[in-house]
Amino acid sequence: MDPQAGAKPHFSVGRLLFGHPLQTKDLPHQAISRPVGLAVFASDALSSTAYATEEILIILSLAGGGAALFGISIPIAIAIAILLAIVTVSYRQTIYTYPNGGGAYIVARDNLGELPAQIAGAALLTDYILTVAVSISSGVAQITSAFPNLLPYRVDLAVGVIVIMAIVNLRGVKESGRIFAIPTYFFLGIMALTLIVGFIRMLTGTLTPVTGVEALQHQVLEPLTVFLVLRAFSSGCTALTGIEAISNGITAFKKPRSHNAAVTLIWMSSILIVLFLGITIMAHQIEAQPSEVETVISQIGRAVYGGESVFYLLTLAGTALILLMAANTSYADFPRLAALAARDGYLPRQLTFRGGRLVFSWGIVILSVLAALLVILMDARTTALIPLYAIGVFLSFTLSQSGMVVHLWRVSKLKPGETMQGLETTLEYDAHWRKKIVISAIGAFVTGIVMIVFTVTKFTSGAWFVVLLIPALVFVFSRIHNHYQDVARSLSLAGKKPDVQSRPVQTLIMIDDVHRETVRLVDFAKSLGHPWRAIHVAINPEKAEIVKQKWNERIGEGELIILESPYRLLSEPITEYLLELQEQNPDSFIHVVLGHLAMDTFWEQTLHQNTALIFNLSLSRFDNVAVTMIPFRINRQNGKHAPAESAQSAGAAR
Amino acid sequence: MDPQAGAKPHFSVGRLLFGHPLQTKDLPHQAISRPVGLAVFASDALSSTAYATEEILIILSLAGGGAALFGISIPIAIAIAILLAIVTVSYRQTIYTYPNGGGAYIVARDNLGELPAQIAGAALLTDYILTVAVSISSGVAQITSAFPNLLPYRVDLAVGVIVIMAIVNLRGVKESGRIFAIPTYFFLGIMALTLIVGFIRMLTGTLTPVTGVEALQHQVLEPLTVFLVLRAFSSGCTALTGIEAISNGITAFKKPRSHNAAVTLIWMSSILIVLFLGITIMAHQIEAQPSEVETVISQIGRAVYGGESVFYLLTLAGTALILLMAANTSYADFPRLAALAARDGYLPRQLTFRGGRLVFSWGIVILSVLAALLVILMDARTTALIPLYAIGVFLSFTLSQSGMVVHLWRVSKLKPGETMQGLETTLEYDAHWRKKIVISAIGAFVTGIVMIVFTVTKFTSGAWFVVLLIPALVFVFSRIHNHYQDVARSLSLAGKKPDVQSRPVQTLIMIDDVHRETVRLVDFAKSLGHPWRAIHVAINPEKAEIVKQKWNERIGEGELIILESPYRLLSEPITEYLLELQEQNPDSFIHVVLGHLAMDTFWEQTLHQNTALIFNLSLSRFDNVAVTMIPFRINRQNGKHAPAESAQSAGAAR
Repeated sequence: MDPQAGAKPHFSVGRLLFGHPLQTKDLPHQAISRPVGLAVFASDALSSTAYATEEILIILSLAGGGAALFGISIPIAIAIAILLAIVTVSYRQTIYTYPNGGGAYIVARDNLGELPAQIAGAALLTDYILTVAVSISSGVAQITSAFPNLLPYRVDLAVGVIVIMAIVNLRGVKESGRIFAIPTYFFLGIMALTLIVGFIRMLTGTLTPVTGVEALQHQVLEPLTVFLVLRAFSSGCTALTGIEAISNGITAFKKPRSHNAAVTLIWMSSILIVLFLGITIMAHQIEAQPSEVETVISQIGRAVYGGESVFYLLTLAGTALILLMAANTSYADFPRLAALAARDGYLPRQLTFRGGRLVFSWGIVILSVLAALLVILMDARTTALIPLYAIGVFLSFTLSQSGMVVHLWRVSKLKPGETMQGLETTLEYDAHWRKKIVISAIGAFVTGIVMIVFTVTKFTSGAWFVVLLIPALVFVFSRIHNHYQDVARSLSLAGKKPDVQSRPVQTLIMIDDVHRETVRLVDFAKSLGHPWRAIHVAINPEKAEIVKQKWNERIGEGELIILESPYRLLSEPITEYLLELQEQNPDSFIHVVLGHLAMDTFWEQTLHQNTALIFNLSLSRFDNVAVTMIPFRINRQNGKHAPAESAQSAGAAR
Repeated sequence: MDPQAGAKPHFSVGRLLFGHPLQTKDLPHQAISRPVGLAVFASDALSSTAYATEEILIILSLAGGGAALFGISIPIAIAIAILLAIVTVSYRQTIYTYPNGGGAYIVARDNLGELPAQIAGAALLTDYILTVAVSISSGVAQITSAFPNLLPYRVDLAVGVIVIMAIVNLRGVKESGRIFAIPTYFFLGIMALTLIVGFIRMLTGTLTPVTGVEALQHQVLEPLTVFLVLRAFSSGCTALTGIEAISNGITAFKKPRSHNAAVTLIWMSSILIVLFLGITIMAHQIEAQPSEVETVISQIGRAVYGGESVFYLLTLAGTALILLMAANTSYADFPRLAALAARDGYLPRQLTFRGGRLVFSWGIVILSVLAALLVILMDARTTALIPLYAIGVFLSFTLSQSGMVVHLWRVSKLKPGETMQGLETTLEYDAHWRKKIVISAIGAFVTGIVMIVFTVTKFTSGAWFVVLLIPALVFVFSRIHNHYQDVARSLSLAGKKPDVQSRPVQTLIMIDDVHRETVRLVDFAKSLGHPWRAIHVAINPEKAEIVKQKWNERIGEGELIILESPYRLLSEPITEYLLELQEQNPDSFIHVVLGHLAMDTFWEQTLHQNTALIFNLSLSRFDNVAVTMIPFRINRQNGKHAPAESAQSAGAAR
């Protein structure tokens, strides 16, 4: 059969919303260049500059704020930039080690074992959901900074954006890269302009502090301790979120993949460091203050351009856009990881199926619902969502880099020229293993510390949820995995050629009355050519008498068995009869044949009992019982089954 | 099989709430005496005295109220009592004419034709719903009269009572009569006491007007016109609601049924007239005023006994109880009438089935939901519900008595001794036909006028709904009837002995992979002994290759057909293939065999595709295609299918 001529799907509802179906062969086989790769994979990382500086200032404001105190943000940002550089180098190593994709899940599975891999998987799935919630909340916050009268609607706006994003992704985004390039480079351009203009005005002395900010007020102030600085550092580390994206997507790059991916990673991290430091310094210069109603980016924009300038609005638009793009990457990554986990039997198998538009529809729907739920629960407040987000991100950073430490430790055992086969990659001798292991170890250690700081300081304000969620997810994964393994074991032929054997078949036809449909059932039973009997359940004893009489008059062959049903139940007497029959003939197939009146419309169908459908379910609990449904089409339009005679004799239809 | 030993139902959920299931033979075959009959059937009629007087006063208050104006209520009540007497005599005739039950539906069908019968049926079904809504709303109003702080919860209270009543009736009320006798006779006793004490106090001059009533205030007053008096008369006619109950339930009486029923009817009407007139006169004496917060019964009770007396509370309790009993009669009548209409093919056939407790469960649930909805919409206000109620009641009165006029007209054609066979009854010569026809005609005419007055005056405040609803119901009845007739015609054998013939059978087994379940399908196909083929839909082309190879290695016989599915659809390629096959072999049965992995728990089942269930539905649209499901039990507990070998080779389970 020609695939082109293959059966096209019939559905038209939703065609308008989701587009026409696509063929499997249309799956994109992309190979992207470095600039496009930067645009595709950088949005998540770069967008975190929209809130990272602000998160530092929020923690510092706990000690009272003020220009002097906020000045500490600059050394903190520099420390974060250094950590970012270390993690980047560590991930660069991962990219070369796992040229087929080196996400935390794969690296952990390869080096740390199944359980850490499951933990990494759970952490990543949680993260993708939170990326959507955080990015969209922050994006909406940029918009409400410019238009404060939209502030009461921020939850509605955020949920609305999630719904639109879900529809767009269910249609399937052609990852042509170009679409991604526009917002990413627009953001980079406008932010570069803002920082340059800002620094020029600073140097020329025309940059004045921002005014009219409704600053965040704390009821109780804390002393400026080392721990507070550590908390500010941890909060600022949200700047790191998203830098793992390239290591997940190596296969999308043009060859040589690892090299191109690594170069793109360095570019991305460099831009990220420049932006993050620039924004932090600029925020300090203009004396930006954390606020519930205006983001730091908006304050910078206002100070640099003035609140009436179109460039101010463009800055916020660019920031909101890159945040939307960042959320959108989760719409590609979450369903893909869920499908991967499902393929390996850790999540329901249904997640591996591609819908009409070739996307993993279930994954998109689940992601959207959960992200929307989080946004609603947390009132679309970025700061409230950040701890939940950061724990997962830094957990997967820690696991990934610990995996690399183990990997490099194994590599250290190799002699020059020697190789060893891992699960996903080949281990080769590496003279620089010492230097590399130190980098990965520092990365693992510091990201681990950040994770612990978040967990401890935010435990009561939401972090407990992630602390419970990740083990719960791991538990569910393992239960699902066990189930699929049990099923596979049950179904296994163990590679042997099985004995295929013929067995006796007993046919039972279930009849409710004696009419045209009954005749069809008898036809079928006789056509099968095995011993057959008819069964009637006497829910109404008077009717049973009539059925018996009609059977003798009109069919006049075969045996009709009437089963009593004092409690007016249908399935139970049949179940009992089948159990008896099974006991008497343990080697036979019992073949139960039911009629089903098939109607043209749903409403007509509801006027009938549809016993066959109910039966099918209740009888599926038996071994050796096959259930057959013989549809009998009732079609008023063409009147195929409608001869002219009177209906009086037909009796009641089910 | 001994019915005692018959299959007992398994379900235990709801057993606590609804009681253990009952056998069909336990259906009560009652024969009740006159006093019990009065208790069983009178509650609906007698309970209407709780609101009839009040409804007259509400209309009169539109003209300003005051003792002089309210005095008109007494002649109006006398006129209503006369109408009540006429309708009673008319119904007495019906009872003798239709000894097997003479409800409006049967009388209309017998004398006026199918359409009027359908209208009567629709009116009755509407009435039963409104009886529940009105009686419970009025019952709650009696309670809130005594405890005004419950007033804000009247809707909640009314809905709560409906829910309890639904549960009680789903358990099944043993209509022993005794349970009914207690509240009915308690109400009669306490009301008799109230009226007697009231009249004694009136005659001794110690009865003073009631005080502290928060009287109903109207924005705009109307002049006292004849039409207003007519409206007051119509509103008071709600006293008549329920007097038809005995004519529906003649068969429940001891023999001679008609005679006993007729005597009970006369008793009931006499008591009703006395009560209604007594309450109306007493209301006038104590200068009762219609009020939103206190019922007239409560005002009478307070004036007669004083608001602190226990007898005052007993009066309200008795009234509330009889109203609950009245609502409860609908719980017997609505499901019974719905079952009758369903048996005749005017409502879905499912309504004829008795549940585990022998009650018509669907009818009870539908009645409860609709009544609760009405109570919520109308804010549990009796006065707002009355017009909706009265239209239906008086429409069925009019139809029933018009039917009797036609019946008596036919009787008038007979000569002495001559008889004629009707549909439901035998027409006999009657010398008194002239007198009888006048009574029925007056009854039909006046009840018709009352119906029109309600329809016109209350059209905009809710009556429009009933005016639209009844024709809509009649339309639905006829559509359902046509459908069942079409089906019956399609199924009809027209009494002929049909040709039962053998036809060729082609077996197709649907396979997803090659494992133990597949072997079972092949077993079954071979056991059937007809030509067979295996079909695999290539949703994943790579997997299809593997399946082909496994098939050759492990099964090695029969033909495996791979169907392409470029859009990753399952049903559509099979549908196309079946259409082709059907065209080539129009006389064959095509026998599609599917495997179904049956799990122990719902959650485990959700981890699988359950394709077989989906297929069953989509393939039921074909003629000559039989669909068989072979269950394959996966049972971890007993490990029946779980040999020790590795699961690696089993491949993915569906």
